[in-house]
Amino acid sequence: MILKSLREEVLEANLELVRRGLVLYTFGNASGISRGDSLVVIKPSGVPYEVMKPEELVVVDLDGKVVEGKLRPSSDLPTHLVLYKAFAGIGGVAHTHSRFATAWAQAQREIPCFGTTHADYFHDSVPVTKPLTPKAIRSDYEVNTGHAIVRRFVKLDPLHMPGVLVAGHAPFCWGATPTEAAHAAVVIEEIAALAMHTLTANPKARAISKHLHDKHFLRKHGGSAYYGQKK
Amino acid sequence: MILKSLREEVLEANLELVRRGLVLYTFGNASGISRGDSLVVIKPSGVPYEVMKPEELVVVDLDGKVVEGKLRPSSDLPTHLVLYKAFAGIGGVAHTHSRFATAWAQAQREIPCFGTTHADYFHDSVPVTKPLTPKAIRSDYEVNTGHAIVRRFVKLDPLHMPGVLVAGHAPFCWGATPTEAAHAAVVIEEIAALAMHTLTANPKARAISKHLHDKHFLRKHGGSAYYGQKK
Amino acid sequence: MILKSLREEVLEANLELVRRGLVLYTFGNASGISRGDSLVVIKPSGVPYEVMKPEELVVVDLDGKVVEGKLRPSSDLPTHLVLYKAFAGIGGVAHTHSRFATAWAQAQREIPCFGTTHADYFHDSVPVTKPLTPKAIRSDYEVNTGHAIVRRFVKLDPLHMPGVLVAGHAPFCWGATPTEAAHAAVVIEEIAALAMHTLTANPKARAISKHLHDKHFLRKHGGSAYYGQKK
Amino acid sequence: MILKSLREEVLEANLELVRRGLVLYTFGNASGISRGDSLVVIKPSGVPYEVMKPEELVVVDLDGKVVEGKLRPSSDLPTHLVLYKAFAGIGGVAHTHSRFATAWAQAQREIPCFGTTHADYFHDSVPVTKPLTPKAIRSDYEVNTGHAIVRRFVKLDPLHMPGVLVAGHAPFCWGATPTEAAHAAVVIEEIAALAMHTLTANPKARAISKHLHDKHFLRKHGGSAYYGQKK
Repeated sequence: MILKSLREEVLEANLELVRRGLVLYTFGNASGISRGDSLVVIKPSGVPYEVMKPEELVVVDLDGKVVEGKLRPSSDLPTHLVLYKAFAGIGGVAHTHSRFATAWAQAQREIPCFGTTHADYFHDSVPVTKPLTPKAIRSDYEVNTGHAIVRRFVKLDPLHMPGVLVAGHAPFCWGATPTEAAHAAVVIEEIAALAMHTLTANPKARAISKHLHDKHFLRKHGGSAYYGQKK
Repeated sequence: MILKSLREEVLEANLELVRRGLVLYTFGNASGISRGDSLVVIKPSGVPYEVMKPEELVVVDLDGKVVEGKLRPSSDLPTHLVLYKAFAGIGGVAHTHSRFATAWAQAQREIPCFGTTHADYFHDSVPVTKPLTPKAIRSDYEVNTGHAIVRRFVKLDPLHMPGVLVAGHAPFCWGATPTEAAHAAVVIEEIAALAMHTLTANPKARAISKHLHDKHFLRKHGGSAYYGQKK
Repeated sequence: MILKSLREEVLEANLELVRRGLVLYTFGNASGISRGDSLVVIKPSGVPYEVMKPEELVVVDLDGKVVEGKLRPSSDLPTHLVLYKAFAGIGGVAHTHSRFATAWAQAQREIPCFGTTHADYFHDSVPVTKPLTPKAIRSDYEVNTGHAIVRRFVKLDPLHMPGVLVAGHAPFCWGATPTEAAHAAVVIEEIAALAMHTLTANPKARAISKHLHDKHFLRKHGGSAYYGQKK
Repeated sequence: MILKSLREEVLEANLELVRRGLVLYTFGNASGISRGDSLVVIKPSGVPYEVMKPEELVVVDLDGKVVEGKLRPSSDLPTHLVLYKAFAGIGGVAHTHSRFATAWAQAQREIPCFGTTHADYFHDSVPVTKPLTPKAIRSDYEVNTGHAIVRRFVKLDPLHMPGVLVAGHAPFCWGATPTEAAHAAVVIEEIAALAMHTLTANPKARAISKHLHDKHFLRKHGGSAYYGQKK
């Protein structure tokens, strides 16, 4: 069995999505990449999480060809592969249909940055992709979903914006590792819930200032970060 | 004891409704049919789930006559029987008062298909029945509830639309087996919650395109499905 | 120790409120009456539920004088006593600050009967009391809270309407026994949540017809009830 | 190890925030002060709660200098210190990003007192700070957050108002002890949720009368309190 430790981390990232209540039945998947081997480890399609073992995960190359594993990979694999190819700095991808983030994706509205919880992780509004054309839906749908995400990020840095809402679908998140990708999926759900309730309390709520946004983002990211323990 | 394995599956379907938080006290019931025997197994009325045993389930014929069992069947049995008689392809029925699906039923509004979670399971908006007339309420109320559902499905395929909202009441769901019926009851609740929050995030949210809807439904259903493992 | 079995039932009713998530810290209380002895058993004030024992409950007479018990009774005792004196048919009272029912009480709006879950238990909208006058708040506040409830029930049958929303405060519920009172407190919370979400799905939602309301209420109550097992 | 018993109480206060579901990952912190020693015990920054031990908490003086402990203190420490210096009567501070209270902070709206649950703890609307100026954000941000809170309390008694919403951020709460501070953080979340749902049920809901507000507050606070057991 190759990539044992990556398999274990990817499995653990999948289980984190379940533990945090982001996943109903099999509505979610996480993957990780070994950049050195150009190989991706991903959850198999439609298999219950509770019984999943590291050896059941599927190893594929960047064209999606199965290199090791007896089961079909997640049907969202082509989207993951597009993201790994376009975003050189990421090491993991997580996709869920978590309740509040999915509601914003369905509403086809960006999540405004109403507060510091958001600013700690996302360096702007959480973006939404444009809807796919009928043609892009008809063939290579999952690949085209990835392209829609990449197009939305032409002017954005994926390491400063660890997730996106796919219009009419749900969030895709990522990070330097599968663990961080799952973490981003948990956080995007919390941000989405906070923003929803903020609008209920005040339909005219406004985003926080760019100053406050930068302050919080840079407390946790970059050279002058001072959150957490020294490494 | 007849129909041992169907009894066990029906009990398990009832317990799934409880485990997923869809049922308060005894507000729900699931049943299954043996098409070969023309016999239906259903939960007894008003008995707590925690202590229920397979032998306490009630076996009835398609006229509702008890064939085996000491307890009264669920008071919603006549609705289940109408569905089994009208929808030849179904093998199980599940009814709950789950919170969000019931809210839509009470709101007497169809659930628009705002996203792919919905499209994966329901091949159009989730339909609502018409309210019953005073006469239909007065006598044979539960039978008439079934008829109202069947009337709503004159132009719909129950296998492409595994549930309905009964106006002013709650959802009824179904599937090829009792297990699938319970699964549909879980999914309809999630879809209902997502749609509710979608409207909060964007009161003018619109349904996804027919192209995207078809794509997702057909990823999981019919001859060209490619979700899950090969069977 | 007198009234051992009533103490146990009242303790169990209090714990049911906790188990169902209706009570934060000590924000709730349940009591029961022995009509033969004209004695009431109630939770002590401000004592955590987790460690409460039957012998710590307080026994009082109908004037509120402690007959047995070392602890102060719940500060809401005078409200309970007014209800026992005014509503001859009740044997238990339960009071919580459960989230959705309290929100309706704070909104000072009756809960319309939007569906059959409501109709199964309450034979009309859930009523709200009138706010107390400054004078009624100043002295004998808890007694006057009870009087406000009783005034609201001049034309209502408390056995067909097992609870009320006290304006700006929270629900009080009751039943033939402490067990039934706690059950009503659980159900009123569910009804309140369903009604809230119904308004979100359709701000113009309307109450169900009187025919459907009567049908469901009378399936479970009175001489022609047919829900549950024969007794 | 100094301040052993305060360390244990502060750890327990931090864990209470987790147990009550107020904290996702490490988004929260509680501290306590020894007034006699002029020393503050606080949670370390970015360390998971599940594995935290009393000896890992950090002891600092009122200038924020670490007196005992190997880990960095919470990045919100300077805010806590400003509060301890300004509010002589408090012995503990708790900060969370709990969902509903944070939504109100993000909405930058005071929480009106819609009912007695609120009145039992807060002797007026829950206040919101003014947004910080760009300059106050740029340098000494956490200190200036504390100053914004203190400015908001010029005319308020912190012992009658055990918490505040920091605009665009989240609640800070306090009390006579770390235990009471955590308790206030739990209660402010419940009050925030109740108020949010109250507005959903009735967008024109109004605050309760000053008479009722005073009655409930004074049932629990001050010389004529009669809630709970005699002490």
